Amino acid sequence: MSLRTHTCGALRADHVDQTVSLCGWVNSYRDHGGVIFIDLRDREGITQVVFHPENADAHATGDRLRNEDVVRITGTCLRREEGMANPKLVTGEIEVDARQVEILNKADTPPFTPDDAARTGEETRLRYRFIDMRRPAMQNILRTRHRVAKLMRDYFDENGFYEVETPFLCRSTPEGARDFLVPSRLQPGEFYALPQSPQLFKQILMSGGIDKYFQIVRCFRDEDPRADRQAEFTQLDVEMSFIDQEDVMNTHEGLMRRIWKEVLDVDVPEIRRMTYAEAMNRYGSDRPDLRFDLELIDVTDIAKGTDFKVFTASIEAGGIVKAIRVPGGAKLSRKETDTLAEWVKQFGAGGLPVSKRENGAWSTGIAKFIEPVGDALAERLGAQDGDLVCFGVSNKPAVVHRVLGELRIRLAHDLGMIRDDQWEWLWVIDFPLVEWDDDRKRWHSLHHPFTSPNPEDMDKLESDTANVRSWAYDLVLNGSELGGGSVRIHDTETQKRVFKVLGIDEEEARAKFGFLLDALRFGAPPHGGIAFGLDRIVMHLCGTTNIRDVIAFPKTQNGADLLTEAPSEVDLEQLKELHLRVNLPQPAATPTPTA
Amino acid sequence: MSLRTHTCGALRADHVDQTVSLCGWVNSYRDHGGVIFIDLRDREGITQVVFHPENADAHATGDRLRNEDVVRITGTCLRREEGMANPKLVTGEIEVDARQVEILNKADTPPFTPDDAARTGEETRLRYRFIDMRRPAMQNILRTRHRVAKLMRDYFDENGFYEVETPFLCRSTPEGARDFLVPSRLQPGEFYALPQSPQLFKQILMSGGIDKYFQIVRCFRDEDPRADRQAEFTQLDVEMSFIDQEDVMNTHEGLMRRIWKEVLDVDVPEIRRMTYAEAMNRYGSDRPDLRFDLELIDVTDIAKGTDFKVFTASIEAGGIVKAIRVPGGAKLSRKETDTLAEWVKQFGAGGLPVSKRENGAWSTGIAKFIEPVGDALAERLGAQDGDLVCFGVSNKPAVVHRVLGELRIRLAHDLGMIRDDQWEWLWVIDFPLVEWDDDRKRWHSLHHPFTSPNPEDMDKLESDTANVRSWAYDLVLNGSELGGGSVRIHDTETQKRVFKVLGIDEEEARAKFGFLLDALRFGAPPHGGIAFGLDRIVMHLCGTTNIRDVIAFPKTQNGADLLTEAPSEVDLEQLKELHLRVNLPQPAATPTPTA
Repeated sequence: MSLRTHTCGALRADHVDQTVSLCGWVNSYRDHGGVIFIDLRDREGITQVVFHPENADAHATGDRLRNEDVVRITGTCLRREEGMANPKLVTGEIEVDARQVEILNKADTPPFTPDDAARTGEETRLRYRFIDMRRPAMQNILRTRHRVAKLMRDYFDENGFYEVETPFLCRSTPEGARDFLVPSRLQPGEFYALPQSPQLFKQILMSGGIDKYFQIVRCFRDEDPRADRQAEFTQLDVEMSFIDQEDVMNTHEGLMRRIWKEVLDVDVPEIRRMTYAEAMNRYGSDRPDLRFDLELIDVTDIAKGTDFKVFTASIEAGGIVKAIRVPGGAKLSRKETDTLAEWVKQFGAGGLPVSKRENGAWSTGIAKFIEPVGDALAERLGAQDGDLVCFGVSNKPAVVHRVLGELRIRLAHDLGMIRDDQWEWLWVIDFPLVEWDDDRKRWHSLHHPFTSPNPEDMDKLESDTANVRSWAYDLVLNGSELGGGSVRIHDTETQKRVFKVLGIDEEEARAKFGFLLDALRFGAPPHGGIAFGLDRIVMHLCGTTNIRDVIAFPKTQNGADLLTEAPSEVDLEQLKELHLRVNLPQPAATPTPTA
Repeated sequence: MSLRTHTCGALRADHVDQTVSLCGWVNSYRDHGGVIFIDLRDREGITQVVFHPENADAHATGDRLRNEDVVRITGTCLRREEGMANPKLVTGEIEVDARQVEILNKADTPPFTPDDAARTGEETRLRYRFIDMRRPAMQNILRTRHRVAKLMRDYFDENGFYEVETPFLCRSTPEGARDFLVPSRLQPGEFYALPQSPQLFKQILMSGGIDKYFQIVRCFRDEDPRADRQAEFTQLDVEMSFIDQEDVMNTHEGLMRRIWKEVLDVDVPEIRRMTYAEAMNRYGSDRPDLRFDLELIDVTDIAKGTDFKVFTASIEAGGIVKAIRVPGGAKLSRKETDTLAEWVKQFGAGGLPVSKRENGAWSTGIAKFIEPVGDALAERLGAQDGDLVCFGVSNKPAVVHRVLGELRIRLAHDLGMIRDDQWEWLWVIDFPLVEWDDDRKRWHSLHHPFTSPNPEDMDKLESDTANVRSWAYDLVLNGSELGGGSVRIHDTETQKRVFKVLGIDEEEARAKFGFLLDALRFGAPPHGGIAFGLDRIVMHLCGTTNIRDVIAFPKTQNGADLLTEAPSEVDLEQLKELHLRVNLPQPAATPTPTA
């Protein structure tokens, strides 16, 4: 603004001979025979500034400049000499001949420079996030994140949605993940919880006649450390009234189409749909990565005809055998397939039977066992010379799906089957309403307890619970879940029936969700919605797999902010006001030396 | 969407003869000789639906409808009969002749209806907020709030600002108001704090080269109950680099101009500026309400010439006497001025000397005491017949300002001097950097410790601290502070000097604000910003003085959410995982009966 006439990304040949003022950081410094060159950097780019000895004052100051000093430069925009233009910079045709220099803030030698960041450990970068953030890559991410949020808000505004703010100091509901608690000082002994999502509030808004709601909102889950998780994360949260499942999916397909077009100039086609059952059967996952084939093919009936005990015993115990044909996989060595066999054990597999197709016959691995059914198998799989075939087998079909589902992803990565510019979108629909929780011996909502059963399946809610489909849907991109949602239950009777199936009795339902039941019985419209992970969307758009890259001030896996050193101990006085006492586990007692 | 062809606010004469489907709530029900009329309500308006006995099925269902039932109606849009149009409704020219009715959700008899809300206590309305929210007035507020946030985001986006999200799980800094604490489970015995504002993060963003930042963000203060406060409130938070105070003020003047124009069609003129010193002298407040005059006029020199002990003793003790001339105030009775005299005591006044101007002379009150200087006083004040004059007197000038500052506001309201359509904008500038905290015997930042002193006053930072001006500014509308900000200190040396003046030693500064000092010394640009209360802005735009009206899910003064009944007790297991124990004060012991 008033300190500068242009940013460091603005000057072009058109500006030659103009007097300009730039502000920014010294990105680099060079002395060529007494003529000093600096690259001046700001959010918009880099401009070369030159200090000629003839301008003695400016030159003297220029000579003192070092990396990350903050300066204001006034000078003349000049065309660079013939052959000296830098086509890599948008400002590469010009340079600024400095006449006046003002050091706005002299920097101490920084622990690293933005150019060095790639060679600097993540802990140091997080500790000095303000330097890390000066990197063009990081600036691009934060700009993209801003743009995505803006595109979302524009889109929803155009489509008649209101952004409504919901509370952060909420009631703790011991469903789902662990809550972060906030002690109340005014109501001693009581606690708020930070929201895991505004689920109930958005349903209340629908009962309140808001009709179409969205919010980009922080949510919180106190879960155990995992690399791709943050205790606080940002959600695009949406709810709509008087709609069906198709309305919600179409609305958000349009949103994704707009974002991918505006940010990446990529066209999102009409997004295909697949039922949960099909996704599990063909890809062993409810969020299949469709950038490559490697489908799961059921060969149980064929495997039954072998003498291979691993197959036959599992099948007899009610299990299944499925296979993945890996084109070109025959090049994998015995050692490599053994490594895979070891790796799949974490998903419950006993091992990984494989065989290869060479010269029109099975060879290596379990070739001799499958010999009797070799042709039928080859035909079913469409096996060709050079293929590897991997078998998943277990007396639990879910284990076969999990093992082969994970395996196909690993194989696709290992064998370079994925191109960078592939975008494979998918709606997964017809999720089961519930799944059996074997630990707690009860049905558990696959989505959440407010999800509407598919009305076609209502008659078997109690009698054939496992096969009741819900009106839930997930949007999957390249095998990663971008978001998911459901049409909700909008009448009290259905909600009570579902609570009952879930083993939540009336008293418990009233205590935990009484206000929701009230909102339903006093006139809730049919409604449904969806939520997307904003962090995840920005990761896709920016091509990073590190969630901390897309968050300005991320926390480590342990929930620590290395910049501000949060969390921290607090004054005893603060705890006293909250009527709280910290009660740390005692360290193991030192054995008392015997006298 | 698919359930309806139009909203309840959409149909006009143009739609006559079309078949339409509407969804909404039954707002009222009338039976006129067997023909049933209902008003169907949704977010967009009300449409009259008529059920003729000829359409037997629809009529039978229509006959069962009651208030707040949720229905879907399909029928024909008809022009109302001659003379039956309702000019109060935008849909008043038409009605829908119902052919099919679907009861989407039959409502239980609600505790109150949206039309009744005005006659329903606030507690009941908050308990059933989903009904309260169906009121057109409440819907209008939430729509306005959405629009204001959207206008802000559009404006900042157009002006090159990025919206960047800052953390909610922060470090506790025992400065300012009380923090809400969040126990960390992964770091037992340690706590996060919810942010009182993203102040330090936005300064870090400037050091990180983000250049222009804004965010609409929830902030938290655990303060004691007060009617116009919420523990969580929403702030428009802004920071800019390479700017001066004028840049920040101009940017936000433009923002306010856009919002007031778009929402209310009101033009905001160039906003005048007033120094803090002038505001205190003339209006006794740093956020003067300029919708009326009632200026404070210094009459100390004249009062010195009276024999009125109250005046002379205070003046001798270093105090001052100021007066407010109240045009037409002579009509106030003795009882009324006595009430005022009692009322001002809460602001530190000993009483409220008054006199009236009648027939060119002073009468009543302290008339006889001011007689000797009567003409000089009348001339100074420009007193005219019918005026009341109120005197503020104290040996502490600050008390005089406070008393008369509050009094002028009350008088303006009592005497009806304020029109509804008045918008008086003001920038207050040149705030003192610090004020003396007599309790803690140290200087205290008027804005916050990161506010830049005015460089012109840097040489007296240590020697004449009380008179150092800062680069801080507040935007005031109709006597209410909409927002405030400052240019920040951007170099380590100045920041250290200011910390020292505030009695924060190097060790403490390092412990509390080490990361900020690092951000400054490794290259922070000159920067400054501002923050506005979004709740307050929406209150002004919607003409309400109740902060709970502009928040979808507000809390009561005690921090309770009556809808969800937060806060609440939590499971012992949850506390155990956090290594916390609740330690409530013991109730007084019941005396043990002696045996």
